[in-house]
Amino acid sequence: MSMTRRELTKLVTRLEAGVPLSPELYARTGNARILGITGPPGVGKSSLIDRLIDELRRQGKTVGVIVIDPTSPISGGALLGDRLRMQRHSDDDGVFIRSLATRHHHGGLTDATPQIIHALDAAGFDIVIVETVGTGQDEVEVAEVADTVVVVLMPELGDEIQRAKSGLMEIADVLVINKSDLMNAGAARQETRRPKQGQRWERPTLRTSAKTGDGITTLCHVADAHHAHLAASGQLAGRRERAARAEVIRLLQSRMTASILCALGASRPQTILSAVAKRKLDPYDAAQKLWVEILGSKNRSHKYVATNSR
Amino acid sequence: MSMTRRELTKLVTRLEAGVPLSPELYARTGNARILGITGPPGVGKSSLIDRLIDELRRQGKTVGVIVIDPTSPISGGALLGDRLRMQRHSDDDGVFIRSLATRHHHGGLTDATPQIIHALDAAGFDIVIVETVGTGQDEVEVAEVADTVVVVLMPELGDEIQRAKSGLMEIADVLVINKSDLMNAGAARQETRRPKQGQRWERPTLRTSAKTGDGITTLCHVADAHHAHLAASGQLAGRRERAARAEVIRLLQSRMTASILCALGASRPQTILSAVAKRKLDPYDAAQKLWVEILGSKNRSHKYVATNSR
Repeated sequence: MSMTRRELTKLVTRLEAGVPLSPELYARTGNARILGITGPPGVGKSSLIDRLIDELRRQGKTVGVIVIDPTSPISGGALLGDRLRMQRHSDDDGVFIRSLATRHHHGGLTDATPQIIHALDAAGFDIVIVETVGTGQDEVEVAEVADTVVVVLMPELGDEIQRAKSGLMEIADVLVINKSDLMNAGAARQETRRPKQGQRWERPTLRTSAKTGDGITTLCHVADAHHAHLAASGQLAGRRERAARAEVIRLLQSRMTASILCALGASRPQTILSAVAKRKLDPYDAAQKLWVEILGSKNRSHKYVATNSR
Repeated sequence: MSMTRRELTKLVTRLEAGVPLSPELYARTGNARILGITGPPGVGKSSLIDRLIDELRRQGKTVGVIVIDPTSPISGGALLGDRLRMQRHSDDDGVFIRSLATRHHHGGLTDATPQIIHALDAAGFDIVIVETVGTGQDEVEVAEVADTVVVVLMPELGDEIQRAKSGLMEIADVLVINKSDLMNAGAARQETRRPKQGQRWERPTLRTSAKTGDGITTLCHVADAHHAHLAASGQLAGRRERAARAEVIRLLQSRMTASILCALGASRPQTILSAVAKRKLDPYDAAQKLWVEILGSKNRSHKYVATNSR
């Protein structure tokens, strides 16, 4: 590690508060493998990651873990237990775990997530694991930052979760059926599909049990194979470009939202918003007036982008 | 109704495709009561709404329902069954139900949701019900559009859902414990807290069973009482202003994102993004360069809003 655990902890706290990573540290990124792990609530993602950490440490690899926690920090529960179990690695300098609350944030990642990934990458961790809850709505976001996306499911899932699955399938590079110890013997005997060599990645389906440890070694091998495939086929550079693009767009959107909220504080915009509430002006016309207001009417180089027309 | 069902169906389809509502129709809105119903998956929101429709129709009220469906349209399942059950009202001209898919949309509402609420409002429906799935992340959005927010829970909930609850609690005007038929006799005998008169609304907790119909009439009374409270205390105008503001901000954000994506297609922005992927330029500096690029360097009236500094 190029920085102490204490330095890294402080840095991550600053990044979480919105302070950008220095250009010097950013220049040292790009070496870690970013592994996204997502799936519906209750499939055992945290326990699986706990097992993965064990396996990766056995291989001598250092591991950073970012847990995106979509729930309130107020309440506790079983999940917190899993987090605590993961924290048993906290004496190990080769492991760094950080939980990020996303309360009142829409979507799967916090704005600081890419920056925190960069920090762990710059700090020298071999693997950075990003855990998100995939509900079928925000599943795309983890794919924006990860080289390899592992989607975790379990044998028995409720109907709503089953329906959310198809969204998750689109981003899965590796599919894991966890809690395979719950399966009946017939299902468990099914062949596990393994990836084949070639230009096109055929998504493998693995069975694991975080409880017994079954399948964890295979999962590590398959994740390695996927990364080797990305590097050999030239697709890794494409994924990294997509991640950079997504991160910059996210920053620009934050800046633009800040501009909007700042501009709306003035008296004329307030009058416009009030007219909308009173049904004297419709929301689209109000947006058009405010757009001119926010950008400044003298700016002819930037036209109102009308995505739709009546 | 001031328009035929066929006209309304066509209008909603146009709104869903992004065509704005006409100013004339918008001017006719503001009369419907907007009832938001949210809660975790599986608590029986759709069945509860089905019962609510029955009760409201008995009272002679017309009902529009907008179901925000966060899952893929590809797969089916139990939920679809609920939707179909709700559709048994489709022969009733006093009921209009529309399901909106939010696939790959981040957050609880689609961009068109406020516009579709306006359409049902302008069409003359007395009550517009908006159903969203509250996962603890996007629960806030339904509160942006609703006059009254009903949060639905059930007696037995998984741990992750229990943790999501506290986020939902913040926006609940009325709390409903559905599936109360599953409760043991002791719990069911508990007093139901009812709202008191006064300036401050004390959130009531009701027990309902969509299966037996128990508690549905009380829920309607309590929702009426909440609306009367909002009107009498002057808070209704505040909620409507907040909704107008949220809708206009959402429109401005969409326009800004469209501007960003449009601008990034040019060759200089592409070079900047490529430099980020290659770690030659950090994402914040890239965002700053692109900000100037997008807004036009001659525009001095609009400064870069730096929300944070290094």
